[in-house]
Amino acid sequence: MILSGQSTIAGQAVRGQGGTSHAVNPATGEALEPTIYFINVDEIDQAARAAQAAFDTYRSTPPADRAVFLETIAANLDAMKAEIVVRAQQESGLTTARLEGEHGRTTNQLRLFAKELRLGAHQEVRIDSALPERLPTPGPDIRQRQVPLGPVAVFGASNFPLAFSVAGGDTASALAAGCPVIVKAHNSHAGTCELAGQAITKAVADCNLPPGVFSIIFGPGASVGQALAAHPAIKAIAFTGSQGAGTDLMRTAAGRTEPIPVYAEMSSVNPVVLFPGAIAKDPKALAAGFVASLTLGAGQFCTNPGLIFIPVDAPSITEAIITALGELTGQTMLSSGIFHAFNEGNKRLDTRGAELIATGAPGSTLNAPAPTIYRTTAAHLRATPDLQEEVFGASAMIVTYVDLKDLMATLEAMQGQLTSTVHAVESDFAQVTAIMPIMERKAGRLIFNGWPTGVEVNHAMVHGGPFPATSDSRTTSVGTLAIYRFQRPVSYQGFPDQLLPVAISDDNPWALPRRVNGQLT
Amino acid sequence: MILSGQSTIAGQAVRGQGGTSHAVNPATGEALEPTIYFINVDEIDQAARAAQAAFDTYRSTPPADRAVFLETIAANLDAMKAEIVVRAQQESGLTTARLEGEHGRTTNQLRLFAKELRLGAHQEVRIDSALPERLPTPGPDIRQRQVPLGPVAVFGASNFPLAFSVAGGDTASALAAGCPVIVKAHNSHAGTCELAGQAITKAVADCNLPPGVFSIIFGPGASVGQALAAHPAIKAIAFTGSQGAGTDLMRTAAGRTEPIPVYAEMSSVNPVVLFPGAIAKDPKALAAGFVASLTLGAGQFCTNPGLIFIPVDAPSITEAIITALGELTGQTMLSSGIFHAFNEGNKRLDTRGAELIATGAPGSTLNAPAPTIYRTTAAHLRATPDLQEEVFGASAMIVTYVDLKDLMATLEAMQGQLTSTVHAVESDFAQVTAIMPIMERKAGRLIFNGWPTGVEVNHAMVHGGPFPATSDSRTTSVGTLAIYRFQRPVSYQGFPDQLLPVAISDDNPWALPRRVNGQLT
Repeated sequence: MILSGQSTIAGQAVRGQGGTSHAVNPATGEALEPTIYFINVDEIDQAARAAQAAFDTYRSTPPADRAVFLETIAANLDAMKAEIVVRAQQESGLTTARLEGEHGRTTNQLRLFAKELRLGAHQEVRIDSALPERLPTPGPDIRQRQVPLGPVAVFGASNFPLAFSVAGGDTASALAAGCPVIVKAHNSHAGTCELAGQAITKAVADCNLPPGVFSIIFGPGASVGQALAAHPAIKAIAFTGSQGAGTDLMRTAAGRTEPIPVYAEMSSVNPVVLFPGAIAKDPKALAAGFVASLTLGAGQFCTNPGLIFIPVDAPSITEAIITALGELTGQTMLSSGIFHAFNEGNKRLDTRGAELIATGAPGSTLNAPAPTIYRTTAAHLRATPDLQEEVFGASAMIVTYVDLKDLMATLEAMQGQLTSTVHAVESDFAQVTAIMPIMERKAGRLIFNGWPTGVEVNHAMVHGGPFPATSDSRTTSVGTLAIYRFQRPVSYQGFPDQLLPVAISDDNPWALPRRVNGQLT
Repeated sequence: MILSGQSTIAGQAVRGQGGTSHAVNPATGEALEPTIYFINVDEIDQAARAAQAAFDTYRSTPPADRAVFLETIAANLDAMKAEIVVRAQQESGLTTARLEGEHGRTTNQLRLFAKELRLGAHQEVRIDSALPERLPTPGPDIRQRQVPLGPVAVFGASNFPLAFSVAGGDTASALAAGCPVIVKAHNSHAGTCELAGQAITKAVADCNLPPGVFSIIFGPGASVGQALAAHPAIKAIAFTGSQGAGTDLMRTAAGRTEPIPVYAEMSSVNPVVLFPGAIAKDPKALAAGFVASLTLGAGQFCTNPGLIFIPVDAPSITEAIITALGELTGQTMLSSGIFHAFNEGNKRLDTRGAELIATGAPGSTLNAPAPTIYRTTAAHLRATPDLQEEVFGASAMIVTYVDLKDLMATLEAMQGQLTSTVHAVESDFAQVTAIMPIMERKAGRLIFNGWPTGVEVNHAMVHGGPFPATSDSRTTSVGTLAIYRFQRPVSYQGFPDQLLPVAISDDNPWALPRRVNGQLT
């Protein structure tokens, strides 16, 4: 495909009139062709109205048809795999192997949602039969199903240019739910966005769906992005990125005439707790595992382990970590902006009294800083809430704790997190049991003897957590449960079968799982 | 029981120091004993901390124990039924028969949630087994369950002093989910609140639960209520009442350091559409049904039918409605404030160009206005958005529509609603099919050939809907699905069985329904 730098609004290429931009290769500083044309705020209205117009048609498609649509997007992405990976590599500085893996994850994700649609459990059908004999008044037949919310605005992440971007989990789950999607493309990987957008636009046409089901627009987040979030036709927002941009979207959504849900996945330092027994067993393996998780993909993961709690009297593990990190070289970060923020974040740790105890070597490309590890005490962390702020990239902080009480008080003082991890052997289990309730209150995913990076895409995954990890702890942005973010229940009272939606009609032609009179069937 | 006018904070009576008040009998204007003692904003902290302290213990109780707790509340309410109904009658002006029915609904609701806890489907257990052979990396064992959000602040409604108040659906569903509850009592039925609070406080003690599981406080909504909503220990808000107070709570919740969910059920005019065939069949029965639904309980229902769409050329039904209403006498409204708001609301309809076409007679008590019906055209309603505002009480507006197009344009211009109703016979079905998608987008419950008042408490009920009907269309405040409002998913990766919560342990001692590797079991 030829890149045009243009937005696609309901199947039509639109050369925006709101300024231009270029993606930049972060390893070299080179500006990448083509020119990206930003749209004006006015042009959002076109995309939003097209999405609104497509909504009733799209949401009434049988789930099997929507499954085919998602599979067609996956097939189109597969056909474009080579050029997508090349472009993403140029725009992100991530390795080809990583991006090939991420491409597979993106298409697997689409196919998993297709499977989920065919099962149909997400429609959550509930039927309470009529009770004609009930006194003092007969009970009506009432049936419930989930309906999609409406057009969704998706804002992808810079750190997963495929799996959390244009054709990523937010788009896949919103389309699965029956919601049209408008993606505000990420300008740092604009070409990759355009390619993925082409794959979806082609699938819309391949499947004879109304073109308003999908649009992708280029523009500045602060103007075009915010205006999209504020448009009355938009009924939900999905976002992955910084806490600043996420809370801006939350404010915009709450300030609308009709407030709407915002699913913003924002910031997390993903605390890891090492217990004495686990350390004694194999400090070198623990250190290697930690440093590998910390530096994977230049540390640019939402679930990057940024805080590691270590007993104060455990020099073996600290030494092993310092040694392991010292052998590593920094990798290219996603952009010069992210590189500078990494350096500023480390400076903040310095000025707030954390001690730099380990570094690797800087990389040979641009924007490839040395990975760093700082250290502080649990008491100092409790007294210095700023130190909880995420430093995005391969920077972590060892937090030494005196005893279980010191550890528990510090975990209790932590903000909401995506993940919380423990390393323990049987002799540590009483301590694990003591901190489990705190971990459950603070995080969306608890991990035992593993590392938080590497998020499985399945049915049981929760990639979510209390604020500020996300804006809405009641959901996940990864895994099949993510569909539920874009649905709401509607009940139907006393309708004759011929007027009922297929999903809740008597003969159940889609063979959906149902809960009838309270019993699961 | 003797009424004390005192708050109960974690089992302890607290005579507030923040001013006093009295409930008033709306039928007579008489102030009712005892004096109600308002707490100070400072005293909220005590209740919130006690709830926080009780949370981990309470949420780890087996669901069967929580079921017994809910049934104990119901039994305690049963034992106090006579005095509760007498007091509620004095404070609300509602009839004894209505309040006896509402008492039964309240206890049935508690018992339904107890049954739901024993089934355990709301824990939504999902297990994805480990994949040790997977390449390039093995897949970990991941298990998901729902955990409760934390302490919940409940603000009950004036119009259901039992079923939507202290021991109502919000409290029942939050307690079922495993959340401690703090109720801000409604001052207009303070004595009824205190009695219901005693029933719950006694059940907490009967079941040996930590006293912080339940508190009930008296105070002004604008200070004490808002401060409760803003307290960091509170993790969700449930509210039923006016749009003004509901949106104030939404703002407070969004402005917190940690924003929290708000479930506010606010305002709805519950449009009813009459199609020509249904009118032709039996205009008198339709008119009688409408007027009965409109005037039930002085029209003080969230689902009161406030707008009724009638074809412009259907004089038979309009005449039948005028006749039916003319035979009725107004009933005592809940308070003089609500009575005055009713009169102001009717004046607004007047000044906005709606025509008063029918009235009943005023009642003989205080605060018992004549029921009223106004009329306007669909085109005028579209041009005058103010006319969509709810007039709380027995006031409705007939909206005449020219044809299906006129009707559809007007329905499309409506705000979010709790319910939307059609009356149709087979010859009208094509028109019903045409408006169904609009109804689904605008309302939480669709009703066929019935009336919106009378909300069943079962599994399939949705008492919810898009803003401004509620603050969060993704939920319901009535029925078993209401539990889900107070939960969030957590996943557990790689944990040995002995550290897993019982709900997701291998042997499944609570026999919970589970989704294993994507399959419902």
